[in-house]
Amino acid sequence: MAKQLKNLTKRSESYSQWYNDLVLKANLAEQSAVRGCMVIKPYGYAIWEKIQRQLDDMFKETGHVNAYFPLLIPKSFLSKEAEHVEGFAKECAVVTHHRLMQDPNGTGVVVDPSAKLEEELIIRPTSETIIWNTYRNWITSYRDLPILCNQWANVMRWEMRTRMFLRTAEFLWQEGHTAHETRQEAEAETVRMINLYGDFAEQYMAMPVIKGVKSATERFAGALDTYTIEAMMQDGKALQSGTSHFLGQNFAKAFDVQFSNRENKMDYVWASSWGVSTRLMGALIMTHSDDNGLVLPPKLAPIQVVIIPIYKGEEQLAKVSEKANAIVAQLKSMGISVKYDDSDNKRAGFKFADYELKGVPVRLVIGARDLENGTIEVMRRDTLEKTNLPVEGIEAHVAQLLEDIQANIFQKALDQRAAMTQEVDSYDEFKEKIEGGGFFLCHWDGTAETEEKIKNETKATIRCIPLDGDKTPGKCMVTGKPSAQRVIFARAY
Amino acid sequence: MAKQLKNLTKRSESYSQWYNDLVLKANLAEQSAVRGCMVIKPYGYAIWEKIQRQLDDMFKETGHVNAYFPLLIPKSFLSKEAEHVEGFAKECAVVTHHRLMQDPNGTGVVVDPSAKLEEELIIRPTSETIIWNTYRNWITSYRDLPILCNQWANVMRWEMRTRMFLRTAEFLWQEGHTAHETRQEAEAETVRMINLYGDFAEQYMAMPVIKGVKSATERFAGALDTYTIEAMMQDGKALQSGTSHFLGQNFAKAFDVQFSNRENKMDYVWASSWGVSTRLMGALIMTHSDDNGLVLPPKLAPIQVVIIPIYKGEEQLAKVSEKANAIVAQLKSMGISVKYDDSDNKRAGFKFADYELKGVPVRLVIGARDLENGTIEVMRRDTLEKTNLPVEGIEAHVAQLLEDIQANIFQKALDQRAAMTQEVDSYDEFKEKIEGGGFFLCHWDGTAETEEKIKNETKATIRCIPLDGDKTPGKCMVTGKPSAQRVIFARAY
Repeated sequence: MAKQLKNLTKRSESYSQWYNDLVLKANLAEQSAVRGCMVIKPYGYAIWEKIQRQLDDMFKETGHVNAYFPLLIPKSFLSKEAEHVEGFAKECAVVTHHRLMQDPNGTGVVVDPSAKLEEELIIRPTSETIIWNTYRNWITSYRDLPILCNQWANVMRWEMRTRMFLRTAEFLWQEGHTAHETRQEAEAETVRMINLYGDFAEQYMAMPVIKGVKSATERFAGALDTYTIEAMMQDGKALQSGTSHFLGQNFAKAFDVQFSNRENKMDYVWASSWGVSTRLMGALIMTHSDDNGLVLPPKLAPIQVVIIPIYKGEEQLAKVSEKANAIVAQLKSMGISVKYDDSDNKRAGFKFADYELKGVPVRLVIGARDLENGTIEVMRRDTLEKTNLPVEGIEAHVAQLLEDIQANIFQKALDQRAAMTQEVDSYDEFKEKIEGGGFFLCHWDGTAETEEKIKNETKATIRCIPLDGDKTPGKCMVTGKPSAQRVIFARAY
Repeated sequence: MAKQLKNLTKRSESYSQWYNDLVLKANLAEQSAVRGCMVIKPYGYAIWEKIQRQLDDMFKETGHVNAYFPLLIPKSFLSKEAEHVEGFAKECAVVTHHRLMQDPNGTGVVVDPSAKLEEELIIRPTSETIIWNTYRNWITSYRDLPILCNQWANVMRWEMRTRMFLRTAEFLWQEGHTAHETRQEAEAETVRMINLYGDFAEQYMAMPVIKGVKSATERFAGALDTYTIEAMMQDGKALQSGTSHFLGQNFAKAFDVQFSNRENKMDYVWASSWGVSTRLMGALIMTHSDDNGLVLPPKLAPIQVVIIPIYKGEEQLAKVSEKANAIVAQLKSMGISVKYDDSDNKRAGFKFADYELKGVPVRLVIGARDLENGTIEVMRRDTLEKTNLPVEGIEAHVAQLLEDIQANIFQKALDQRAAMTQEVDSYDEFKEKIEGGGFFLCHWDGTAETEEKIKNETKATIRCIPLDGDKTPGKCMVTGKPSAQRVIFARAY
């Protein structure tokens, strides 16, 4: 265990190595024996469970229900929506057989050639096709609408270059799939969900995001419009953290989902889909953490407060524990998750480093001398500040401190983003400055050609056309042609 | 919608048709376009979520943590444990390729032959192999033990004959995988978890179960011992509802997972695994429901109480709603989930039938006359009894009624099981009586041959060697050879 605490690469040396180190050493995840697929370890999964629970509550509050659709999708379904298959065909895991047999020429098992499927099945890369094929039987009239379903599931996209949480062949996510009477309703749902994601990112992850619309090039395969929340990581790169798609009638037409409307005429159903994934874990790490390890927002920390005793001998421990247990009980009654770590096989210094690495927001240390003095040591993980405080009333102080930390790390991320965001009007200047990272608000002529040129020459992409902020028209920094408003360019994960 | 409420086959006509009808008409699940895979619809999924949440809490209370392991398992892993591969090879979905391409000879997409995997991957039928391959890196010393991990996941077993919830190619489940220093500890964990499943079944599902050990023939592939909870369905057939396996050192040896023990010697790690699945949904349905639809235990009902107004005109509705909303608020504050259905596009009679079909435990009806009289109509779903009661204090009555229903349906299931359980000592008598269904406590000589003969001749299997109850030895009903104790025979799902 002790070796885990050493050798966390500094961010200034290599940000990407720091990230990989941290994911491993904080016991969040590790590579599995299967190419591009990770194991999410218990501590990482505990954070994901907090994310899930909160999002699930927010989905239910907004009238959504959960359901479950098959993992496997008939190959022919993918082909039904032309852009969709174009977008996903190249990264599909394909099931072709349903049985193994003893190898007749050796040991072990081989695929049984007689168990070949008539039609190959694809492990879902996303579920629009199988869900819209199902919705056809659920919808006959406007009275059956809207349908507001969500699914928590695993999906698979056979990515060539993978990084834990950020891009893995298999990942966990939720995908909402809604069906509506009118274009207006479906568009309103699309926007409502990107706003919900934005609220979650900012209020729970303490991660500021910019809400906007994707350019046509960056749209989800099969969507008429893709809304996104874009966050800035500490290295100035963008991370797309959630998307919500207005699908128009594309999937309804592909799967012939019609309904009789209020005028008693048949029409195709309007759709949205939206999702966030375990990628949010990567976003969380790269927004707040530091060279000592994770920094977790209190609202998503599996352990919000750790209490560590300092003692010599059983007798001192008994006294310290009595006080500590009283604090534990009080904090728990206030809904705060707290761990009292009196394990005697690790030294206090080891524990300090370990809980710092794990990002526990508040650490309380209580020793024999504290008992005499009526004091306790409080450390906040975000600033590493230590204070000695009266133990009397410490619970209220901790509750307030958790709120302060949540607000402080949000503000810190917001300040960093502001410091690394700039307007640039000259393409030469852009090419120079993009090397330093950050968000660039630039005018763009709206064409895919210009977007492509910028991407090829600078590796920067349009992250989004922001919904809020400056809407002043101008001239494209590359072509000088008219631009409706500034858009955000950045290099991205 | 109205058509859904008709044509529920009576149990006396065809129990299996009744089951299928009910699953469809109560909107629990339906067949998907993929062979043997179901869609779990929102109402069915809401019940599953209640099951999940409760089990997850119980796992955490007993010190378990959640994690997530890959969906896909390298083919070679399966071969490492001889009995395991024997058990699962014949029902594996096999991924052989990772890309599709445009069909060069037509429209649509085909498998890209250049994207063939070097080693085929299997969609997990269960995760012992991938997990023990992972544990090898987590365990070096006894200090790393025990590991108490659980995973909520989808798994796939390519069954030839499927039935919704009871046996589907893909299903949802949880699988616990624990690692221990000693045989004793691993065995104790195995027993602890079958007891936990038993408590869950009886206290939450209101389903009496018999805990026991499987015969060698019926053991999990790779286990030294399999513990089971066996429930009796209304038709007298058994349903295996949860299993807990003592795996010995089989998987540790197959994946070379050794640790240095307290004597500083290397030893193989001891293991257990245990799981329950969406099959529990089938068990729930077939334990309690009737010809009018679902009967749900209050502790797992997504809606515990429905309130339906009876009114003419807006004015009456407003008055009734005022009273109803006060009851809703009060019930919610007591932690009871309640729905006030004042939708005006369905008649009251339709609503009555619909909530009966959906198994909502308590129905309250409030009309204009009730307002005058200070009364309310209460119906309990389990007995369909209606009572008129003073509206004053109705909330406390409802809370008590929910407890009564929970207890009553458990007792009813227990009584039915008792009525359909008998000791039989003659094989001729057994062959005759088995046609009527039920559990048969019989002596058996302990051999696989006798077990096989009975199965072939009667379709009955040994459900378990019960842990509790009569341990008197006797003589095998078939061979007359010595028997250590009576075991339970039944036909099973």
